This record gives sequence, C-alpha cells and structure tokens, in this order.
Amino acid sequence: MIRSEETICAPATSGGGAIAVIRISGSQSIDICTKIFFPADSKINLKDLKGYSLVYGDIKKDGEIIDDVMVSVFRAPHSYTGENAVEISCHASSYIQHTILGLLVRSGALPAQPGEFTRRAFLNGKMDLLQAEAVADIIAASSEAAHKVAINQMRGGFSKEIERLRSQLLNFASLIELELDFGEEDVEFADREKLKELVNSTKSLADKLASSFLLGNAVRNGIPVTITGKPNSGKSTLLNTLLMEEKAIVSEIPGTTRDTIEDTIVIEGIEYRFIDTAGLRETSDIIENLGIKKTHEKIEQASVILYIDDISDTSESINKRINEIKNLISDSGKKLFILINKIDQDKQGRVRDLSCSIEINEADTLLFISAKERIGIDDLKQKLGEIVLKERLRTENVIITNIRHYEAMIKVSESLGRVLEGLETHIPSDLIALDIRQAIHYLGEITGEITSDEILGNIFKNFCIGK
Amino acid sequence: MIRSEETICAPATSGGGAIAVIRISGSQSIDICTKIFFPADSKINLKDLKGYSLVYGDIKKDGEIIDDVMVSVFRAPHSYTGENAVEISCHASSYIQHTILGLLVRSGALPAQPGEFTRRAFLNGKMDLLQAEAVADIIAASSEAAHKVAINQMRGGFSKEIERLRSQLLNFASLIELELDFGEEDVEFADREKLKELVNSTKSLADKLASSFLLGNAVRNGIPVTITGKPNSGKSTLLNTLLMEEKAIVSEIPGTTRDTIEDTIVIEGIEYRFIDTAGLRETSDIIENLGIKKTHEKIEQASVILYIDDISDTSESINKRINEIKNLISDSGKKLFILINKIDQDKQGRVRDLSCSIEINEADTLLFISAKERIGIDDLKQKLGEIVLKERLRTENVIITNIRHYEAMIKVSESLGRVLEGLETHIPSDLIALDIRQAIHYLGEITGEITSDEILGNIFKNFCIGK
Repeated sequence: MIRSEETICAPATSGGGAIAVIRISGSQSIDICTKIFFPADSKINLKDLKGYSLVYGDIKKDGEIIDDVMVSVFRAPHSYTGENAVEISCHASSYIQHTILGLLVRSGALPAQPGEFTRRAFLNGKMDLLQAEAVADIIAASSEAAHKVAINQMRGGFSKEIERLRSQLLNFASLIELELDFGEEDVEFADREKLKELVNSTKSLADKLASSFLLGNAVRNGIPVTITGKPNSGKSTLLNTLLMEEKAIVSEIPGTTRDTIEDTIVIEGIEYRFIDTAGLRETSDIIENLGIKKTHEKIEQASVILYIDDISDTSESINKRINEIKNLISDSGKKLFILINKIDQDKQGRVRDLSCSIEINEADTLLFISAKERIGIDDLKQKLGEIVLKERLRTENVIITNIRHYEAMIKVSESLGRVLEGLETHIPSDLIALDIRQAIHYLGEITGEITSDEILGNIFKNFCIGK
Repeated sequence: MIRSEETICAPATSGGGAIAVIRISGSQSIDICTKIFFPADSKINLKDLKGYSLVYGDIKKDGEIIDDVMVSVFRAPHSYTGENAVEISCHASSYIQHTILGLLVRSGALPAQPGEFTRRAFLNGKMDLLQAEAVADIIAASSEAAHKVAINQMRGGFSKEIERLRSQLLNFASLIELELDFGEEDVEFADREKLKELVNSTKSLADKLASSFLLGNAVRNGIPVTITGKPNSGKSTLLNTLLMEEKAIVSEIPGTTRDTIEDTIVIEGIEYRFIDTAGLRETSDIIENLGIKKTHEKIEQASVILYIDDISDTSESINKRINEIKNLISDSGKKLFILINKIDQDKQGRVRDLSCSIEINEADTLLFISAKERIGIDDLKQKLGEIVLKERLRTENVIITNIRHYEAMIKVSESLGRVLEGLETHIPSDLIALDIRQAIHYLGEITGEITSDEILGNIFKNFCIGK
C-alpha cells in the first residue's frame, strides 16, 4: 500500500497527564485542520500561516466546542517528517483525544501506523536509517549510558563511521574494477600490499564495531544480574536495599516515576536488570526449594552473579558452596561477587577470619556487607559500576546496540575476510571486487541506502504509534 | 509558603508515547530556559522572542546534548497561567524528562505542586474558581455527557447562573440595607410582596441547581449498575457481551485505548459503571455463594439493577426471585431491568408464555435476551440510555457535578428559606439582610470571590501534576 500521498494522524503522547499532543503529517494536514480548528482570533487562517506558527483556538465538532487547544503549524520541508505537519496540544482526556482523532479521520486523515512519522522522515531524506532507529532507542532509553549511545547515533556518529568504512571500500573497489577494464593487459593499479593493509585496517574497524555489540547490548538493555546464595542468607533484603534507594532517587522530582516492569537500578548511568526476582520478593527464600536447576538457569542468563552467604557459617561450608557456583560459571566470563552478609550480627570478629580463608579467583570480588544495616552497599555499587568498563564506554565513540547492525557488521567482516583470503591466494580480481561490493552492500543496508519494504517494515513495526 | 514569586516546572504529560511536554511558568521561566536550551539557529535568543513563538533546538547539560526539542514561548499575560511560560516538547524517555526537570530545578525553578498552574491561572484572574475546577473535570471526563457539562462550566456557563443569583440577591440586600439607614423612620423601600416573590424565584433557582447534582454526579462519575440474578443464568456472559463491544469501539483508533480500572460502558455519551464485577469475571457464578448480604450491598450502591434469570425456569420460581429483588429495592427509585436470558435455547416458545406471567411494576423493564448470541442486547442498551433522562440533560443549561458546589447551593437555599420565613413573620429587616448577605457569601465561595488558602488547597490537591 502506497501511503506517502496520504495525510496521517496519531496521538503522540499516551497515558494520563494534563495535556496530550496529536500529530498530523502530510500534504493535506493544514487543510484538514482548518475544518476542525477555529482560531480564537478569527482573523487568523491556518492556511496563511508560515511554518513554526503557534495558534490558540477551539476544536469544534458539529459546531460544539470539544476543547480549547494550542496548534503548531509546520511547513514542508521544515518539519520532523519533511512534510506539512500540525501538532494539536489538547487536554488529556481520553474522550477529547478520541473525538479529535475521529474528526481528523472524518476530515480525510488516516490513522498512522507505528513509526510511520519517522518512516516518512527517512523516506523524505530527513535522516538515514541509523538515525531513524536511534529515535526509538532514545525514547526507550532509561539510563544515561543508553541515552548517550542513542543520542550519538541520532546525531550521526555511527553514520559517520559507516561512511568512513564505505569510502575506503569504494576506493578499493574502483581501483580493482579499473584493472578489470584493462583485463587483457594484466595491469595492477592497486598495489596489492597497500590494498591488503587497507582491507586489514577496515576489517579491524568492522570487527571492533561488531564486538562493541556486547557492551552496547548491555548498555541498551541493562546488564543482567542475578542474586543467588544460601537459603536465609538475606537475598531479598539485599534486593530491597538496592532497589529502595533507586526508587527514592527516581521519585525525587514528582511525576517522573517510571513504570518498572522489571527490577532495575541505575548506577552511575548504567542500568542493571535483576533477573527473576519475583521469587525473591514474594516468598523470601522459599525459591531455594526449586533447587539447583533454577539457579543454573538464572546464572545462565546473567552477566553478573551476586552470591550471598551468611557470616555465621564456617569457611569450609561457605567455600564448598562458592565452589559449586564457580563450577556453574566456569570460564563463561561472568562476573562473580561473593557477598558475606549479616556482619552487623558478627560478634566474634569473623570478618578477618573469613577474609583470609575464603577462596576466590582474581576476577571475583569478595565483600562483607550487612544488607539490613546498609553496611558495604556503597562499596558493592561502586564495584558493580567498575565492571562495565566505564572507561571503555567513555573512550569508544560508537557502540553498536542493535542486532540488525551487529549482523550486518559481521557480514561486512566476513566479506572482507574473503577479500584478504583472495589477495593471499591471488584469485581473480573480479571475484575480489565482488566481495568488496558485497561488504559495501551490507553497509548500505545499515544506513538505509539499500533497503526494501520488508526491512523497513521490520524496523518500524516496533516503534510506538505517533512517532 | 508564598510561591507566586517562584518559577515552577512539571511534566504536563505522563506515561509513554513518542513525545512528552514539560511546562514552566513564572516570571523567570524564559530566563531559566535560556540556560539549558540552545536554538538550532544561533541568532535566536529566547529572551528577545514575542509570545507564541516556536523554536527548535537542543537541551544541553554541561555541554552535552540531552535531546533535540521544540520550545514554545508565552509572554504574560497571554498564557494559561497569566505569567511568562515555556513549554518544552521533548522525546518521551523517562531519562530525558528526568534530566530536563533536574536541569530546570538546578537553574532556579521549583517542582510544581498538583494543580499549581491552574491555581496560578485563578489567582491571576484568568478564570474563576468554577472554571478552574472544570479544568480537572475536563481532563477526567470519559464520556460525552461528562465532557459537555465540564466544557460548559469552563466556558463560564455555571458562573453566569451564579452571577444571576448573586445580582438578584445584591439588589434585595441593598434595598433592605437602605431601609436600615432610615431605621427610625420606618420606611419600606423594598416592597415586601415583591421581595417575597423575588426571593422565592431565586430560591427555586438555587433548589433547581442543587437538585441537578444527582444527575450531575451520575453524569460525572458514571451511573452505577449492578448485575445480579439466579446462579448460572449468564451474568458474566452478559457483562462480557456488553463490555466487549465497548472495547472494540474504544480501540477503533489505535493508541487511544484508555485504562479501565472499572468495568464501564458508554451508551450514547453516558457512562455506566458496573459495580463489583470482579466476582463475576473471575469465578463466573460462584459469587452467589456469598449469599443475599452481598447482593444487598451491591443493590444498595447501584442506581440500575440488571436482574438476570433463565428462560427454562417456571414463571412461579422466577416471580418468587423477582419479588425478593423488588423487596430489596422497595421504593428507593432504583431502576430494575428483568432480563430473561438464554432465549436461543428456548425450544418450547416460552417467551410468549413468560411475558404474560412475569409480574413487573410499571417502572420496571422486562426484556428477553440471549447474552451469548447477542439477541436483545441493542434493545437493552437503548432502554438503558432512556433512563438517564437524556431529554432533561439536553434541556438543562447548567448541572452541578461537584459536591462542593452542591453543599454551597444547599446553604444558599437554606439562607433564602430563612429570609422567606423572616418576611412571613415580620422579623427586623437587619436580620433579613444578614441572611441575604450569608447567601451571597456562599455564592462567592463557589466562584472563588470569597476564598481561603484552605479551600484552595482542598480543591487543587486533587489536580494532577502539570496542570
């Protein structure tokens, strides 16, 4: 269905609040709005207004006032979509929003599909595909780091990196293709050694971007953490202590408390997502009855394991349990925190004792805490903050957070790997050129220079309505 | 605390969506925004802009871009609050909103209290108290009728009625007080018969307004309906049939589905609110086990009772059960619908039989339906629509929906009753004047001419943040 000729409308805000915004975009948007919007100053006609105008007036249905609203008018190409556009800011009642949308549809607008505004912005050249995808990430970002990565992407940071890769590859390709034109003469315009060097450095860049996905994914979706440990060692108390502080911080400014579907905390701009805490919260330690299988699953999903044990226990039995966890983790690269809890109840000075006798690997962290009395919690948070390589996050300019980009980047790297192999084995230049063109193709898919309705459909279906 | 000198800020939208709006109001609002907002066109300075300007640019924190936003600038007195005001339209991530609000607070704004924007609009003379209260009603309205009543109130419809009452009373009061000045001479400027007539008509107006509260309350909060009846007669099926259609209608335009805390349907613009349907939904008919006490409670709360029975039963036993319900209702004025269900399964033509033998009062409604097959449901909805006196709703100009107004109006009527009594018993004119002044006082409380911090506090605490 070709819809780009149509004018579309959708609510751009959702839920309650005081006001709501309805968005209209398309060549007819201003005309359509004149049918339902009546400026307070009757001398004003929407059709005569320049872009970036703001007008107060009434929305009317069959002569009756539905609401008094503010209307913003935008003129193509100076709007989000690049088309004529109008934004109606009305009171946030569901009745009013529903009625205004109904009026717009009655006047000739179509209800917008998810992401259709941004899709139009892309199709009208207001942004490339990377930037369009970043819009959804910006809206979904719930931590500083995730937000920073998305903003950088929207600002074209990633696009520039891709452009760098692409121009290098285009350079190779054209040199080699030039040789093909002189195929009979067996010339080499492209110095093979130099070419190899360039492909190598380009491939490293692609590999580096691809490998940033692990970090990027953690930044975008939060770092998965699990709490496990000895029954009654205080797992739910620790969870609550960590989350309670977060909630206090989040609700400091009224009206901004966010819905938490999951239990998450943000430490220095990085989000940590606790896995499968329902059991912990509802039934305290009863979850333990589910046994080692459940623990295994939780550890499997996590990047960070908080293992909690009781200071009153002997170092032998603590070590025995820690070893079980270590075996589960083995060399998966997961970070293990060993937390010895209830030091507020430690009458016999066992901290010193245990700190010598508990066996930890170098990569692991041992901390003595009291979840109940909030002892050692700041230390734990600081140590958690260190593991995500904040330094690396600060120095990396561009991080891949999207599996689509990751997969394309892997393909770029593979193609370039074949190029290197071909150069090594002296296969015909036309085959090498083919692989380079393929790498260029995959890069084009990322930015949207090469695209299909299917790719676009997949990307924009995950957007919210009104964006 | 005197806050009117301060500049306040708050999110005006809530929940998800694509964009969010943050509102700032107060003398410093434009200055504060220049510290965090940087127009894309660097030649633009917010401080130089006229009211009703719209600017695109970046919000920055410590030099780093937080978001690209649209900013609307309003100049006193041409804003909602009557003060300088700014609206920032940003992406709807909780991180962005939280950060922008934090920046505003850091730059000198205070987080707004619930309703503080509207409270300022009232204090700055942009609207009277009735209109301010209507703002909250408009936002909360979820049916056409509730919305209409609120819009009329915001447009000053109710204020005009109060003004009419008030000017009549002021007229009496001044005539009588004039007499008091000539106290010794025993003159009567005010013709006692004419005065009686005028007080009478004024009191009827006050009474009429007070009595509109019953209708107004139903319109504003929805008409309470209960479903009761014989076990397994199809109560939950009926509820689902009624609600399912509603849901289909509500979600016709994507993104506008409202949160339903309660089970409600809107028929021809009037909302019906089903009481205590949890039992019906979860456990089908098991609720019956709770027995007659529960049924009694539900009927107590409802204005409309849908009693449902099974067509396969004998008229004797149906009549016996209906009589029990009738006894519960007695002469409370509640409307009873007797619904004989499962007519799709009626093989013996019992409809005709039962329609003669079921005993109903004239005020009650008897309908034969199949909740499962959707037979007779339109008829039921039409009959439900008729009971709220749609005709009356159409002809009444002003309806009281607020208990504060209702109570004040009752006091006005009582004062005027004492005036009439005084005129009858020829008590001294100064006492009569006192009662008239009291009636005027109560009217002033409604519109906010006479007010206290306590009254204002009570009114605005129920507003949402950002309005």
